[in-house]
Amino acid sequence: MENLVYEYERVDDLQINNLKVIQNPKGFCFGIDAVLLANFVGLKKNAKVIDLGTGTGIIPILLAGKSETSHITALEIQEEVANMAQRSVKLNGLEDRIKILNMDLKDAEKNLEVNGYDVITSNPPYMHPEGLINIDDKKAISRHEVKCTLEDVIRTASRLLKHNGRFFMVHRPIRLVDIMVCCRQYKLEPKRLQFIHSTYNKKPNLLLLECIKAAKPELKILDPLYVYNEEGKYTAQIFHTYGKTQIEEGDEFFE
Amino acid sequence: MENLVYEYERVDDLQINNLKVIQNPKGFCFGIDAVLLANFVGLKKNAKVIDLGTGTGIIPILLAGKSETSHITALEIQEEVANMAQRSVKLNGLEDRIKILNMDLKDAEKNLEVNGYDVITSNPPYMHPEGLINIDDKKAISRHEVKCTLEDVIRTASRLLKHNGRFFMVHRPIRLVDIMVCCRQYKLEPKRLQFIHSTYNKKPNLLLLECIKAAKPELKILDPLYVYNEEGKYTAQIFHTYGKTQIEEGDEFFE
Repeated sequence: MENLVYEYERVDDLQINNLKVIQNPKGFCFGIDAVLLANFVGLKKNAKVIDLGTGTGIIPILLAGKSETSHITALEIQEEVANMAQRSVKLNGLEDRIKILNMDLKDAEKNLEVNGYDVITSNPPYMHPEGLINIDDKKAISRHEVKCTLEDVIRTASRLLKHNGRFFMVHRPIRLVDIMVCCRQYKLEPKRLQFIHSTYNKKPNLLLLECIKAAKPELKILDPLYVYNEEGKYTAQIFHTYGKTQIEEGDEFFE
Repeated sequence: MENLVYEYERVDDLQINNLKVIQNPKGFCFGIDAVLLANFVGLKKNAKVIDLGTGTGIIPILLAGKSETSHITALEIQEEVANMAQRSVKLNGLEDRIKILNMDLKDAEKNLEVNGYDVITSNPPYMHPEGLINIDDKKAISRHEVKCTLEDVIRTASRLLKHNGRFFMVHRPIRLVDIMVCCRQYKLEPKRLQFIHSTYNKKPNLLLLECIKAAKPELKILDPLYVYNEEGKYTAQIFHTYGKTQIEEGDEFFE
């Protein structure tokens, strides 16, 4: 185990089925968004899954924990980050179920089976790169559309999915119009949408979206999800969803 | 006054500036959606306004009540309904400020000034006409896309608005994707979106949208609006918005 975790890294216990994730405290650490997305995904046994832009590998690891599927592939463009995710997979003994590929998602169509997958997940960079100072910064690549745009993610998801396959994404409400327009353009029809609010009387900070490839239009908006109650404690909803996974102090998504 | 109100009609007091609306209890009566929309609209003095599909005339009457503008035009395709709206305008002494036109909104481009208006409002039919039995039914015309589609409304609004003019609409969340896609197609960029929920832990039943013609993309989702509190009474939010206007028993939008 000592060669799996580097000196400057830490291991976070996900508090679900003994799962763990290696993180670099100086890099991009997973947030509540990834955990909410993993919980939002419905997976059939033996579903063929791809996670686009996997980062620490948090989503495939949680999906492996909550399902029986053994066909999870996860793409990460940053070599160092993909290497860390690969070590997390090993640490959990999930090498037979999760394959981490150090690959630009824009190359996925060339290297993977088109129209071949049941489920695509993505927690993509949320922000336009405008005004960004250092575009080589690793955290910036995870947060901003430096290496891939929203359209790259949606187009790739559409190409890889089977007919009636499902695309699950977490994103920011400020991009809602872009998301709806682009999903429909690439025949990923938005079917289920949930807004996540810090508390019940505040605007949403995040959205969870499920699209079905080539489905008929009809959007279902779910009951909202609130993270904190009026006393500033986690709601029962979030406690149920989030399990006992530790939420990072100062998680950026609820600033 | 006796010739203004027909025997089978009733006069509802809007409880705001002594405003009144004539309604036919057997026809389509205005709901909370129209009142919420009127409240959502921001109006500058002397703004040139058009309401598309005005029905009882509730929206122009409320806009006249809350603003100083004298340039409100309201289109209604059903002759009998337009006539009733015209009598409501007279009843309120607003003939100098509100002009009711018995006109198909699809003909608006031919008859009205293109790129000439500051604000367009609409509380359009919400539902697809699929499965509708009697398409001549007056209520059906107000509720279903029999005489005009969502696209007709959005296209017309876009044509009539000045550059940077504003379009305000109330609609159902189930149509959110159609709305976003169509608004962007016709250069009405969604800028402000508010969801209306019956109570805080339920999915939204209505949405209020403000678009700006030819604006840059960036959507702001507002804090949600809840109609009832946990005791089933109106929230302070709704009481403030709705004033003392009587909400119809069994208002269809909160079934």
